[in-house]
Amino acid sequence: MSEHLDASWFTEAFTRCGSAFSLKITAKLHEEQTQYQKLAIYDTETYGKLMVLDGCVMLTDRDNFLYHEMMSHPALFTHARPRRVVIIGGGDCGTLKEVLKHPGVEKVTQIDIDERVTWAAEQWFPALVESNQDPRAELLFEDGVKWVDECEEASVDLIIVDSTDPVGPAEGLFKVDFFKRCFRILREGGILVQQSESPLYHTHSIIKELHTDMQAAGFQTTATLPFPQPVYPSGWWSCTMAGKECNVKQFRDADASARPFDTEYYSADIHRGALALPPFMQRVLNRR
Amino acid sequence: MSEHLDASWFTEAFTRCGSAFSLKITAKLHEEQTQYQKLAIYDTETYGKLMVLDGCVMLTDRDNFLYHEMMSHPALFTHARPRRVVIIGGGDCGTLKEVLKHPGVEKVTQIDIDERVTWAAEQWFPALVESNQDPRAELLFEDGVKWVDECEEASVDLIIVDSTDPVGPAEGLFKVDFFKRCFRILREGGILVQQSESPLYHTHSIIKELHTDMQAAGFQTTATLPFPQPVYPSGWWSCTMAGKECNVKQFRDADASARPFDTEYYSADIHRGALALPPFMQRVLNRR
Repeated sequence: MSEHLDASWFTEAFTRCGSAFSLKITAKLHEEQTQYQKLAIYDTETYGKLMVLDGCVMLTDRDNFLYHEMMSHPALFTHARPRRVVIIGGGDCGTLKEVLKHPGVEKVTQIDIDERVTWAAEQWFPALVESNQDPRAELLFEDGVKWVDECEEASVDLIIVDSTDPVGPAEGLFKVDFFKRCFRILREGGILVQQSESPLYHTHSIIKELHTDMQAAGFQTTATLPFPQPVYPSGWWSCTMAGKECNVKQFRDADASARPFDTEYYSADIHRGALALPPFMQRVLNRR
Repeated sequence: MSEHLDASWFTEAFTRCGSAFSLKITAKLHEEQTQYQKLAIYDTETYGKLMVLDGCVMLTDRDNFLYHEMMSHPALFTHARPRRVVIIGGGDCGTLKEVLKHPGVEKVTQIDIDERVTWAAEQWFPALVESNQDPRAELLFEDGVKWVDECEEASVDLIIVDSTDPVGPAEGLFKVDFFKRCFRILREGGILVQQSESPLYHTHSIIKELHTDMQAAGFQTTATLPFPQPVYPSGWWSCTMAGKECNVKQFRDADASARPFDTEYYSADIHRGALALPPFMQRVLNRR
């Protein structure tokens, strides 16, 4: 009874999770081996353009708003007054675009190691790069960890780690050592936010360890916010925030409600809802 | 670069949605053509047992808690005092089990047309049928619409439509004519709740039409509550409630917080969060 998907489908098997997700493809638009990874762009039947890195779905036109809005607005409305923002990874520029919607942000530096990801976004995802010419935006193509180490102490308000999964190149971005380096460059009241995988698959492993490691790095408060993300494993994803001398379980809800820009998914009520963890996650994460 | 899934995977292609979901299978435990549909049971590598009807994933051990909790507890904590509950469909008994957790419920009648679904649940999903011997539970195997028509007027507090998708046998359960029949048997303050597909795929179609049709049938208020559901199309699902002389956007939050039973996903905060629709859904559903 199971269906067979022919060559017109792109499939990503999440081998360790025992599940797979597929999209119906209408054309392969590009494929290259960059200096760092295999990059492919497809056109799909119902999700618009699709970007794939090393066989893993990175984003589609149709549903990237969920991830990009939730990686940016909750943290920006949690910080008391975010002016200096750093994005590690995020080469598709979708997170950058959301950050730049905040008029109070004075400078955003995006540091992705692979320039070809941004090149591909410029070619096939024009909506994501539409704010790249904003004078507040700085795009660097180098090693994000090295950049953090060379950054002045206590000079940043918000660090967004918009990375691939914690296997391969991005593994180091999920460890206590990296969080300590981030802690150093954050000002008091600063926030670190990290994409943190699937609540269904990773609450007992990656997400739990993130809280432990962020707290071990000196952050006083941590919070995981789940959100839907159809093209990622389990269709359910999360970000985890860590606060340096601030409480990431509270946010400027009046400002979030009065935000001077449109969103598709984010709102003050959605933010509040995402802070309300399901009981099965609370039992794992709220123990300490 | 796309992966090929061999015969050890079960795949459901959501053809009209242009996506597919697969689970790694370790054994096929059962397959039969019942009087109404093709029923199959598999064992999976990471999701426990899997039930499939006509090639569509119905439920797995691992993630059915999301659907069953959200199809029952929000409606039960919205109704002022639910005593008489009817479940149309729901033959796997997972919704029944959740309803019976409420001490105030006096009688629950589950009407599924296909007795073999309940038989399969008894064989392979013992956790779902563990409350079937509760003296408040009545299991009937007949046509749910016919049952509703023969039911006494204004005699029911809550109708839960736990059906398959609105194509084929269940199509009639998504139409204004059926909602009118339900309205007739509900008492004042009564609630109808219907599974209502994917917020990403169906907000502009099925979900929007549900609101229109429920209101055309006489219900004063309607509300869609999204929730994650990894094995259903897009991994993001919803239920839609309709209230007869009651406001389904409010609920007994103190009672929900003090509920005398455990849940994995549902809580008063999750309920409140689910009532907060993302802006893209608000723009479609809150127009009228």
